[in-house]
Amino acid sequence: MRAFEDFTEGLEIALGPYEVTKQEVIEFAAEFDPQPFHLDEEAAKASMLGGLSASGWHTCAMMMRMMADAYVLDSTSQGGPGVDFVKWMRPVRPGDTLYGTACVLSARLSAKRPTIGLARISTTLRNGRGETVLESEHTLFLLTREAAA
Amino acid sequence: MRAFEDFTEGLEIALGPYEVTKQEVIEFAAEFDPQPFHLDEEAAKASMLGGLSASGWHTCAMMMRMMADAYVLDSTSQGGPGVDFVKWMRPVRPGDTLYGTACVLSARLSAKRPTIGLARISTTLRNGRGETVLESEHTLFLLTREAAA
Repeated sequence: MRAFEDFTEGLEIALGPYEVTKQEVIEFAAEFDPQPFHLDEEAAKASMLGGLSASGWHTCAMMMRMMADAYVLDSTSQGGPGVDFVKWMRPVRPGDTLYGTACVLSARLSAKRPTIGLARISTTLRNGRGETVLESEHTLFLLTREAAA
Repeated sequence: MRAFEDFTEGLEIALGPYEVTKQEVIEFAAEFDPQPFHLDEEAAKASMLGGLSASGWHTCAMMMRMMADAYVLDSTSQGGPGVDFVKWMRPVRPGDTLYGTACVLSARLSAKRPTIGLARISTTLRNGRGETVLESEHTLFLLTREAAA
């Protein structure tokens, strides 16, 4: 299991694959983001997105699942304080397979809580054609190895 | 229906209420963010969050639903390019009722596409005790009234 000390600057972790299904795109949209271009093929063709596309927030949730499976669940993660930015670069379509890379930009111990470190992580997701669909940076709280022991 | 021209600087729109259920918290976490403090009461009590809490990405999805119901579905929205930041200020717990405010920070026409305007929107979510649980800023694409006619 990775602890804070393992999240060293420059560490790169591969994410994915994540298969995007039409059913999942429509179910997420129906619950959280029922804009027509996330629900209906015809409406989507007439929109800026040019075809049925996942909600950007759904793509964020897919990213979280990819991070969870690649490194978060097998770490001392304590969650995070937020997200520095998310860029939705291209539409994510049903049938896409997503891959990604998480890269540790920097890491430091908390000034207030010596048992916790903060890792700043940059994440990029690509589709099967190698096109970048999402870029994001966020901070992850992690227990130190000693605190987790 | 609101078009780009209606998103004038200073416009404030009330969001919510949104009832957060334990079932929804656990279902979202199981699908997208299966960290123990989003799934299990006992594990959550032992974590930094101090009790079962929604995934931050789930709170973002709740925010999207609140925005959809308050103004996005009844607008010329064409989605958005991303998110400037999200701050998860406090845990969101099962049983919480969320309220919020969306405020237009600025609005301008696209330089490239004269049929599209960009509205920068600040969003704050609060729980039933009036505590801020989330702050975020993002940009929304909207058709102009003429383009939507």
